[in-house]
Amino acid sequence: MRDGFPEIDDVIDAARRIAGHAVVTPLLRSDALDGIAGGQLLIKAEPLQRTGSFKFRGAFNRISRLSDAEIKSGVVAWSSGNHAQGVAAAAALVGSPATIVMPSDAPTPKVENTSALGAKIVSYDRYAESREQIGTAIAKEQGATIVRPYDDPWIIAGQGTVGLESAAQAAALGTVPNQALVPCGGGGLIAGCALALKDHLPEIAVHPVEPAGFDDTTRSLACGARQANDPDARSICDALLAPEPGELTFAMNRERLSPGLVVSDAEAETAMRLAFRHLKIVAEPGGAVALAAALSGRISCADKTTLIVISGGNVAPQQFEHALDSDVP
Amino acid sequence: MRDGFPEIDDVIDAARRIAGHAVVTPLLRSDALDGIAGGQLLIKAEPLQRTGSFKFRGAFNRISRLSDAEIKSGVVAWSSGNHAQGVAAAAALVGSPATIVMPSDAPTPKVENTSALGAKIVSYDRYAESREQIGTAIAKEQGATIVRPYDDPWIIAGQGTVGLESAAQAAALGTVPNQALVPCGGGGLIAGCALALKDHLPEIAVHPVEPAGFDDTTRSLACGARQANDPDARSICDALLAPEPGELTFAMNRERLSPGLVVSDAEAETAMRLAFRHLKIVAEPGGAVALAAALSGRISCADKTTLIVISGGNVAPQQFEHALDSDVP
Repeated sequence: MRDGFPEIDDVIDAARRIAGHAVVTPLLRSDALDGIAGGQLLIKAEPLQRTGSFKFRGAFNRISRLSDAEIKSGVVAWSSGNHAQGVAAAAALVGSPATIVMPSDAPTPKVENTSALGAKIVSYDRYAESREQIGTAIAKEQGATIVRPYDDPWIIAGQGTVGLESAAQAAALGTVPNQALVPCGGGGLIAGCALALKDHLPEIAVHPVEPAGFDDTTRSLACGARQANDPDARSICDALLAPEPGELTFAMNRERLSPGLVVSDAEAETAMRLAFRHLKIVAEPGGAVALAAALSGRISCADKTTLIVISGGNVAPQQFEHALDSDVP
Repeated sequence: MRDGFPEIDDVIDAARRIAGHAVVTPLLRSDALDGIAGGQLLIKAEPLQRTGSFKFRGAFNRISRLSDAEIKSGVVAWSSGNHAQGVAAAAALVGSPATIVMPSDAPTPKVENTSALGAKIVSYDRYAESREQIGTAIAKEQGATIVRPYDDPWIIAGQGTVGLESAAQAAALGTVPNQALVPCGGGGLIAGCALALKDHLPEIAVHPVEPAGFDDTTRSLACGARQANDPDARSICDALLAPEPGELTFAMNRERLSPGLVVSDAEAETAMRLAFRHLKIVAEPGGAVALAAALSGRISCADKTTLIVISGGNVAPQQFEHALDSDVP
């Protein structure tokens, strides 16, 4: 850790800390998907992570470092569902009461699973209220610790274990990824992954992938300063709807990331369907955007090895069925 | 190998042979599923295997041992789809032409995937014709090698690597499974798994799980001799519709297996839905029967650690959607 920024040693330390609690998710391959993308894909399957997304990694890395007094006073987080479940599971493991501020339109399974993990849920209107303000007020009132979704060096270091594992798994397969495609909301996952991947593979190009209408990181990287999204934008990729890049995450990402890629909701659904068919995993819309970028030709994968992160699989049956019924590209 | 029966060294040798070609599939856990089953479940996720089921393991172990002349003359197999894809993929890897005899009502993705792997497909009527007779005639005509779905010691040894990996993964988690539940059609997967598991864990009880109407192994174990299924029986578990236990597999299974369990198609669908929700993997009906047995209380999992094999995930979208719409137990 230096000046509040995580370093590679923090990612390695996070990997040690989560070992035995988090799943070492597999790096999957599919000849059929390679055929569609026109090059070799290595697919990191985070839907298989505890709580169904990578978010448990950062949450456990953060919460397991709290003091006994802090654990007793509880934790507060805001999230549309994946960070919520990660925080709820990590808090339950260390015995800390958790309160989660969730948008009223969060997918039902995400709300139910968070509640089943023992957390208290507080609802808010995603398009009219500020989740930060609500969460901060609750934390102040209860003396609880805020566990931020991405603008926290321990969270970023925890999410970076996705990159660390992927680099080791690719090496075990005897392959060297030339590029990585990573779903990007607030930018915590890709900040940690780029830190870990570029330490092992200095030449790798790490591209954020965002849903159309929420391309804040893509635009921010292009102009060098944080840009916000249009408040009227909508997308089915509920995990990636942060209003703008994080302060800490963007300071890291502007140093390391290659240009951003943007996919449509329909392309995300096609990727979900192809992951169902060829990988046998359940991807949620936001979780599938990096795969979508490769399969829809938003970036060339020809003559390259492309690492792709599928970041989560918490999706309601109805939404999944809609994706299964989407057309073949 | 002794008197045509595989031994534990053959399973260990198969594991070496498939390394780098087959996926070391993860052993998954879910607090939610443990809650429903009332005990700890360790779930071996073979849908993530190459070709979407465990069948690649046995097929590659068998086909990679063929002589150059045999490889050139090609291989013939009969299968509703999972063995078909396993054989097609293994044959393609060693450069051998493959002909697969598939029932005309096999799920479309299984037929398409087998064809995409380069195999020639020959259709037959599952309820009126003998696949063995058709396959044997083709093999004779072409001088090709028959790759049997289960009654072959190399196939059984290959499938046994599922048990070998599971035992090692359970040990790495610091747990000792008391019982194992394994889907059973012709009995090759469970014959290999019981061989491997009982070598590592002599006390483990290994139960076959079958769909209602296709409980031939359950009844055969109970009376000590091979019993056939009613030819008029039907089930959505297309991977498990063998007419009777294999000769070699039953000779092995009668020595090692605990009593069989039988689940309904509806229970298999509920297990598919719960695997979607809590494990984020795609299970096909036949692949989900062992999980179904645990979740529907066909066997007590209380105060025990239960190893469960989900054997495959090759299912058409429409059938998967039907399962997602099934009721909560």
